[in-house]
Amino acid sequence: MQSDAPIGVFDSGIGGLTVVRELMRQLPDEDIIYFGDTARVPYGPKSPETVTRYAHEITSFLRDQGVKNVVVACNTATAHALDSLRAHFDIPITGVIEPGARAAVRASASRRIGVVGTQGTVSSGAYERAIHALDEEAEVTARACPLFVPFVEEGWLDHPAINLVAQDYLAPLRDIGIDALVLGCTHYPLLKPVIARALGPDIKLIDSAEETAGEVARLLTERGLRHAPREDRSHLRFIASDVPEQFRKVGERFLGAAIDHVETLTLG
Amino acid sequence: MQSDAPIGVFDSGIGGLTVVRELMRQLPDEDIIYFGDTARVPYGPKSPETVTRYAHEITSFLRDQGVKNVVVACNTATAHALDSLRAHFDIPITGVIEPGARAAVRASASRRIGVVGTQGTVSSGAYERAIHALDEEAEVTARACPLFVPFVEEGWLDHPAINLVAQDYLAPLRDIGIDALVLGCTHYPLLKPVIARALGPDIKLIDSAEETAGEVARLLTERGLRHAPREDRSHLRFIASDVPEQFRKVGERFLGAAIDHVETLTLG
Repeated sequence: MQSDAPIGVFDSGIGGLTVVRELMRQLPDEDIIYFGDTARVPYGPKSPETVTRYAHEITSFLRDQGVKNVVVACNTATAHALDSLRAHFDIPITGVIEPGARAAVRASASRRIGVVGTQGTVSSGAYERAIHALDEEAEVTARACPLFVPFVEEGWLDHPAINLVAQDYLAPLRDIGIDALVLGCTHYPLLKPVIARALGPDIKLIDSAEETAGEVARLLTERGLRHAPREDRSHLRFIASDVPEQFRKVGERFLGAAIDHVETLTLG
Repeated sequence: MQSDAPIGVFDSGIGGLTVVRELMRQLPDEDIIYFGDTARVPYGPKSPETVTRYAHEITSFLRDQGVKNVVVACNTATAHALDSLRAHFDIPITGVIEPGARAAVRASASRRIGVVGTQGTVSSGAYERAIHALDEEAEVTARACPLFVPFVEEGWLDHPAINLVAQDYLAPLRDIGIDALVLGCTHYPLLKPVIARALGPDIKLIDSAEETAGEVARLLTERGLRHAPREDRSHLRFIASDVPEQFRKVGERFLGAAIDHVETLTLG
């Protein structure tokens, strides 16, 4: 494995670009290949078998591009497919769930932790398992928030309706006394202000994008795989399985930077 | 072609069950095979090429089941794929757009017609074309309402947030003076009360499910393909490409009746 190989990142769509944004901030010398499976988005309501099949197809593709590691920047895919990907591929694979779980356990004093995510992530129980592996006694309450993703994709990040929706989803979590909430979906960091407003100032929000980028930095450093400091700009390559123009337009909001070009590639 | 063959109906997911509901009401003697492509839902944001490929796969499958006609109970698939399906298959194929367009032209006195649908349906311009084929002078204003489908699937049909969302999407249509609005997505009939509240009492709502079932009844009658009146109950068969349990649970709301069993079948 070469330290100048790119990092591979994938998601069901554009949400994983919040992870790319953090990778760019924390690891500015790295090249990145991002695959957004926009032809088959969303993964949330799909079965574990279907999501696992998609994750294998995409990971094979990224491996064939010579990446030095793969970041599963999608909570649903991490929940359903991470173990199976790790068993099948011999490159290091990082999910978004363990880093978020670790940060939540660190942040919570009451040991009452909330998790929000898609139906698929919540039904999988993956966050409960990851948190309990670190703290058996922690009380974990998870809640699916299926309307958050469409509001983010519509760009209604400060609409009165999203505030009502957030109240409805989050009031029960606030009322049981959580003091940390894991944003268990890569779309949700864009709703941080709305979520913070619904929960009040005393509940810490755990952004798994941030935590995951930190985990990747540690992994690459440990294995001597960090790209050397460079003079030129790092290279970002974006691939979508459908409608690249929409990917570019909406994706820039997630990435917080311009996207010059998006390739199209159909898998499966 | 036999009159006792079933009618084939397909949609990207469960929305098309509102068409099945109307077929059951208007054609109670017919057997129906319904395919919901829940593994690949939603079609709305996907490219015309991708949606057309899916529509061909499903229509081939239904033809192989011996159906006497195929109803494309999905506005996006009708918009992108109807012409191509009609050119390729030699069974009669009914879409949801022409019947809705015809009813709108009939209902509108001001000849200002509004259309709401998914991004895919609206971008395709299919309703404008269908309406202008009937009335060149009609003014058509179409608006994508991407948050309606997730609210319907969440079952929040009377939540304060959906009323705010509907206001936001529909006020501009009301303000330009439309007197008829086509519900150009098979999910939207479940939001009729919300939409009516946002628009006021003077704007007629055109339910394409109702109109499409009427079109199928006419077609079968013309071709002598109506099923003979029967003593036994007609046979309904439901097939989903993923997560049949979710299909059953949410689908019953759309169908307005119990769903005993859902088969699973992966295509593509």
